[in-house]
Amino acid sequence: MKQIEIRKPDDFHIHLRQGDLLGMTVHHCSSVFARAIVMPNTIPPIDSPESLEDYRRQISGIDPAFRPLMTFKLLKGMSSENIRLLKKAGAVAGKLYPAGSTTNSADGITHWKEIVELLKVMEEEGLVLSVHGEDPSVFSLDREKAYIPEILEICEEFPQLKVVFEHLSSAEGISTVETGPDNLAGTITVHHLLLTLDDLIGGSLNSHNFCKPVLKGPKDREAIQSVVLEGNRKFFFGSDSAPHSALKKSKGAAGSYTAPVTLPLLAEFFESSNRLELLENFTSRFGAEFYGLPLNEEKIVMEKERWTVPERYGEVIPFFASKEINWKVKKMSFRSDI
Amino acid sequence: MKQIEIRKPDDFHIHLRQGDLLGMTVHHCSSVFARAIVMPNTIPPIDSPESLEDYRRQISGIDPAFRPLMTFKLLKGMSSENIRLLKKAGAVAGKLYPAGSTTNSADGITHWKEIVELLKVMEEEGLVLSVHGEDPSVFSLDREKAYIPEILEICEEFPQLKVVFEHLSSAEGISTVETGPDNLAGTITVHHLLLTLDDLIGGSLNSHNFCKPVLKGPKDREAIQSVVLEGNRKFFFGSDSAPHSALKKSKGAAGSYTAPVTLPLLAEFFESSNRLELLENFTSRFGAEFYGLPLNEEKIVMEKERWTVPERYGEVIPFFASKEINWKVKKMSFRSDI
Repeated sequence: MKQIEIRKPDDFHIHLRQGDLLGMTVHHCSSVFARAIVMPNTIPPIDSPESLEDYRRQISGIDPAFRPLMTFKLLKGMSSENIRLLKKAGAVAGKLYPAGSTTNSADGITHWKEIVELLKVMEEEGLVLSVHGEDPSVFSLDREKAYIPEILEICEEFPQLKVVFEHLSSAEGISTVETGPDNLAGTITVHHLLLTLDDLIGGSLNSHNFCKPVLKGPKDREAIQSVVLEGNRKFFFGSDSAPHSALKKSKGAAGSYTAPVTLPLLAEFFESSNRLELLENFTSRFGAEFYGLPLNEEKIVMEKERWTVPERYGEVIPFFASKEINWKVKKMSFRSDI
Repeated sequence: MKQIEIRKPDDFHIHLRQGDLLGMTVHHCSSVFARAIVMPNTIPPIDSPESLEDYRRQISGIDPAFRPLMTFKLLKGMSSENIRLLKKAGAVAGKLYPAGSTTNSADGITHWKEIVELLKVMEEEGLVLSVHGEDPSVFSLDREKAYIPEILEICEEFPQLKVVFEHLSSAEGISTVETGPDNLAGTITVHHLLLTLDDLIGGSLNSHNFCKPVLKGPKDREAIQSVVLEGNRKFFFGSDSAPHSALKKSKGAAGSYTAPVTLPLLAEFFESSNRLELLENFTSRFGAEFYGLPLNEEKIVMEKERWTVPERYGEVIPFFASKEINWKVKKMSFRSDI
């Protein structure tokens, strides 16, 4: 049976949610990923050292070996001192949500100049700025493109601030990161890598492929696949795995629960393009390097073995539910000291 | 209270469905519209004089005063003689569904040359060709545009054949009809006139606005509104009202049940554009003139009175459910001889 061993990967963008869901989301994430950038758009949001520490405690209580990379949500009226304290509490990144752009973002930022002082402190403190790069005031398919000037202004205004253009979905977004300044990188999800808008609306309506930013067209997917298959180090993996209950999905919630299937699907994608050797850099190197984190020492083994994704995990219908995938994660070899 | 009286309208594109649904769909349609072009994509399809006559009998059994304009579905392998017999049985139009383009179209036509002999007979017999103008082999948002060459080839090959480009959704489709040959016209639905793709995927996912062709962007809607507000006689009303049970919608079926709200929404639209005087031509003249049918003699009165659309009609959640509309149909004045 075909096998590959790769450095244990990180997920540079995940929603672990809260409450009852947390046990499952941490388990699915930590059984494959050593670390993950944990998004702060909980209710209430992670916006203080106390809430950050409490959230981290909850996560670590589920799997002490997992290393959550904590983030906070940038809010209008936040103090510079708060940013410094968040950094001391272990925050790795701060997240900028344009107001109204996605789940739990009504309290977001209308324009980056509202938080210019906070960005300055983040730059000084070496915190990464993670951006949901969409302007929700324009037509849905143009939202990412419309946000590009704002991203570039931030990069120029704060040349030492590392900025991540999250979950890239458009050819224009890809090209902006590709040709943009050195302090700009981008994450790529498995659903934007594999699907187009047709997988949502092209046949029957498939709400399980509904996410923000919405899936785009074939040229956009081609641009995404192209930089990934070139092994461009400015682009790295962030799943944006975002579970909702089947009930919430039926009411139109945006997000796909990709965590349990994302690494197998990536292996399948790279293999089908005859570039399986690029998987490790995409999932286990480029992100850590951009964030300035040490590479993981653990390894995981993946094997080519067909399996069927469960129809549901508890209340949540996963991405690729009931479909077959050709790769699976075989076992993890943990370091002996953790 | 503001009132207007207009010639009783026709709906030049409706799905009345079958079985249990038929009572409701005929009632909602016939209480407002004198006539309607009844789409033939039932199961099995309307494809013979017998099935056409049977379907018409069922419809007339529900409301004898209603005048259904019967159509048939063009199928590969149909005989020319069958077309002539369908005409004798009272068919007004034949419908061309590209294979795979929408609900119950798997048995459709791959290319018009497959049915060149049938189109010739339709031209001779004075039957109208109604076309679901989408090429399902391309990206969903480009499907209407991709079908344009085929529509224009048909119009050129059969200059006496009247061709209707149904439920126009794109700027390119609009411009094709606007600048195209005299034997080409187009229908416009209330949902394509009022909404964009954002009403489906821009906020939460709204499956009740999911239809084929899928809603397009702001420039497309602007093009649609523009020809309607110019009173261009090549464009007339066809609702494409297409009910599905709430259960089927939850499984992704395409179609909006607009019949109960469509005329009030049109009155609202024309009034908001200060062109209320154009409503009558759009709903009650241009379509009949293109089809070569006499204008209706009955009148209906509409009045400006706010009402709330019911949450559901039986198993079906209507378009604009639970929302308020400013216009309603007051009463119908029927001819005394029917």
